[in-house]
Amino acid sequence: MNGAESLVKTLVANGVNICFANPGTSEMHFVAALDAHPEMRCILSLFEGGVTGAADGYWRMARQPAATLLHLAPGFGNGYASVHNARKGFGAMINIVGEHADYHLKYDAPLKGDIEGVTRGVSDWLRVSQDSLSVARDGADAIRAARDGNGQIATLVLPANTAWESAEAPAGPLAPTRLHRPRPDQVAAAAEALCQPGAALFVGGAALFGDAARRAGQIASATGCRLMADLFVPRIERGEGAVAIECMQYPVMENVEILRDIRHMVLLGAGEPVAFFAYPDKPSTPAAPDTRILDLCGPRMDILWSLEALAKATGADASPPDVRPLALPELPTGPADPVKVGQAVGALLPENAIIANESITAGHPLMQGTLTARRHDVLNNPGGAIGAALPLALGAAVACPDRRVIAATGDGSAMYNVQSLWTMAREHLDVTVIVFANRGYQILRGELANVGVPSVGRNAERMFNVEDPVLDWVALAQGHGVDAVRVMDMDAFNAAFADAVARPGPFLIEVVID
Amino acid sequence: MNGAESLVKTLVANGVNICFANPGTSEMHFVAALDAHPEMRCILSLFEGGVTGAADGYWRMARQPAATLLHLAPGFGNGYASVHNARKGFGAMINIVGEHADYHLKYDAPLKGDIEGVTRGVSDWLRVSQDSLSVARDGADAIRAARDGNGQIATLVLPANTAWESAEAPAGPLAPTRLHRPRPDQVAAAAEALCQPGAALFVGGAALFGDAARRAGQIASATGCRLMADLFVPRIERGEGAVAIECMQYPVMENVEILRDIRHMVLLGAGEPVAFFAYPDKPSTPAAPDTRILDLCGPRMDILWSLEALAKATGADASPPDVRPLALPELPTGPADPVKVGQAVGALLPENAIIANESITAGHPLMQGTLTARRHDVLNNPGGAIGAALPLALGAAVACPDRRVIAATGDGSAMYNVQSLWTMAREHLDVTVIVFANRGYQILRGELANVGVPSVGRNAERMFNVEDPVLDWVALAQGHGVDAVRVMDMDAFNAAFADAVARPGPFLIEVVID
Repeated sequence: MNGAESLVKTLVANGVNICFANPGTSEMHFVAALDAHPEMRCILSLFEGGVTGAADGYWRMARQPAATLLHLAPGFGNGYASVHNARKGFGAMINIVGEHADYHLKYDAPLKGDIEGVTRGVSDWLRVSQDSLSVARDGADAIRAARDGNGQIATLVLPANTAWESAEAPAGPLAPTRLHRPRPDQVAAAAEALCQPGAALFVGGAALFGDAARRAGQIASATGCRLMADLFVPRIERGEGAVAIECMQYPVMENVEILRDIRHMVLLGAGEPVAFFAYPDKPSTPAAPDTRILDLCGPRMDILWSLEALAKATGADASPPDVRPLALPELPTGPADPVKVGQAVGALLPENAIIANESITAGHPLMQGTLTARRHDVLNNPGGAIGAALPLALGAAVACPDRRVIAATGDGSAMYNVQSLWTMAREHLDVTVIVFANRGYQILRGELANVGVPSVGRNAERMFNVEDPVLDWVALAQGHGVDAVRVMDMDAFNAAFADAVARPGPFLIEVVID
Repeated sequence: MNGAESLVKTLVANGVNICFANPGTSEMHFVAALDAHPEMRCILSLFEGGVTGAADGYWRMARQPAATLLHLAPGFGNGYASVHNARKGFGAMINIVGEHADYHLKYDAPLKGDIEGVTRGVSDWLRVSQDSLSVARDGADAIRAARDGNGQIATLVLPANTAWESAEAPAGPLAPTRLHRPRPDQVAAAAEALCQPGAALFVGGAALFGDAARRAGQIASATGCRLMADLFVPRIERGEGAVAIECMQYPVMENVEILRDIRHMVLLGAGEPVAFFAYPDKPSTPAAPDTRILDLCGPRMDILWSLEALAKATGADASPPDVRPLALPELPTGPADPVKVGQAVGALLPENAIIANESITAGHPLMQGTLTARRHDVLNNPGGAIGAALPLALGAAVACPDRRVIAATGDGSAMYNVQSLWTMAREHLDVTVIVFANRGYQILRGELANVGVPSVGRNAERMFNVEDPVLDWVALAQGHGVDAVRVMDMDAFNAAFADAVARPGPFLIEVVID
């Protein structure tokens, strides 16, 4: 057994059986070891942003980390933005990054790079394997780290010779780690605060779906507080029967208004809300200055236990949570626009769907239209590095082969990891992609106005629009092996979407919104 | 005037008038300043690998640095691999990376990242602007750094408030820096070594094209030494009348053979040749152990002066260099293969073309076929992070609007910065793209065999082939607004290539090589 084999065996023994991959020469022994273990499913992406973004989407739905396989510092660099997004959403993955044989590093070969430099800033745990005998233990530590703290980014750098030299045995299953919990007096103080006028329970992480969200809803019912969450949460349950959680908006001044009357804010699995960007003469944090903020349970602490403790302290057991009704929008007709597309998706969304949402300027109407649709989960982009929707959808579809996945994305953002379309076709994943073709970075027009520039000149126009030439999304999809259609009006969209969510495999709908 | 305006004025005043860009919200004041200066040409890429790769291609041909505009740590991350490649080839660019307003950083907003961490490893010069009054001087220092040492990566991080707060004046033109030169005794020792049996002059950088290459050829003629260079040099002049320079190969054992008889190796603008990767039981450096290596002039030193000094010391003034004849291959017929495509390109290549070459498995035959073609320059990938050909071609075409640019690329590698096709269409660049569609990462099959795995199983096969589905390069090109054709035989290739190099604007030829 060599180091690579000991690592693959360790991963498989610990239930890590998905590897999103884009390997190169320095990973060949690891590839050979994967090849000898068909119980590990290797999924190729043609660009590394799709590798790491898919691992993030997989984690969010499976709640088990996947492995990734990346080629040296530049390979990790290509996946950096998606790792950044994952980390901001407390996502988990185990990155295996190939490195030159250690004795070869001093020659500064073409692909020699600063792997620790590029990985450190987006890794919660980072180690360079020192020898082949340590690789199995390093892998086990990486798995433990990835599962710790409600999900972490673990990066293991594997010098080629530690992969090909001899090892002894894989490392066995790991004991689960224990999360920090708040003190009883903190729980009591939070319970008391939530019963005051102008109170809000601000939740994140695992409190946004499943039984935990229900517990949070019961607490809100029992205390009369508002139940709130950030806008770009990594995963939230919505639609019929989902607990009603009030989400923040993108513009900071809207959030100032939303939070104006909050006097007591209890944080549970979330940090204090902050502005996405700073703007001259606007606040960085939207909460009113006199809001009392109680940080009950940080995102890395025991969210489920904290909810149970808070439910007990507030006597919430008998309080039914406020849940969304089923109220399907009418199917809209006429020319397509984001509001109508949101309504159509809301009307036609199948039961138990997953929406990977990065539609930016079209995102708000999509969320409005689906608020009381059939039950579904939404995956957002918590890190702001655009290009997330396609890889997230890919990973979610691997995690949940029995659920329909919708990727909703702007045309600008979809270009960043466009290669993920190919992997959807390769793996026959049930993903319906909606590309909102507004033919530009529309968000930036508003942002330029926000900084006080009233009109757009030639240089700005050339950096904002994606016209001349227009991107042909039907051709782009077909080029990647994915069938597609372009629609301009709602009758065509309704028919295409209804058909797409019922057919096996991926399909792309380009909605032109001029 | 605000900080952003002072920076734009400083760039323009110093002759930096191309900005490859992919901006976001934190760069809006810089965008506004660019908008007010139409003498700066802003060129949008839909992915940041195309931004930084284009800046590299531009530098290699223009010998002037371009600016890039990138959005925070993830934006730089997306451009990281191309910066890596540029740096390995001693390329120059001035990266302007937007950052949150400094007072906003402590809130850990979604796009907050470790910008210094991700930029440092691939930047020769790095600074974070501290206030708006310093921005112009920081920009001038970045320009000076980019031009220093035969080309450097300069990265200036621009917190949003340093862009929008008040500045005083731009910084004026800069004095050129002076490069280090070897000592006279070193020149004399090198001249003597080159006259010995088994001597080689191993050149790099500016010694590979133009008058400097001619000087190197004269020295080789006068001393009788071999004139050699690395394989993946950033720029080399080839074809009719170009100085004959013997290039290394990819397999390390071939290079051991090539260098077997070398006893004295003088390095001038290049480091000692090294193996691209380490392999069990193969050497990391191919030179024979008893080779005496004289490091006359490092890649960051004064290459032109060193060549002149060495020419004088060897009395090379009257020696004509060995140059390539014009000898065009016959136009091949029958099914397409890499050898025939190389011959066809050699036969049809127009005068003064530029070939951005990353055809990997098809690269060797392409270089063979074009060795005695009409005069041209070849740009290789000195960093090994695949995806270089399209952005390099883009940047070279911006630098040399009167020359035909050929991008030759494998289908696997072309996917990494495929979005560059759109910018070629947007800017009407005369780029002919040849995609060698072997439908897989063919290089990795050989590399797996190299590590001793005789047969490829399911997992490796799923990571090596790009079939099921096949990429449709005609559709991919058309999706980006670029016309394209697929050819299977040489008659079709010859006709398509002859037509493509004569027509204005970009065109893509997919050559299917099964």
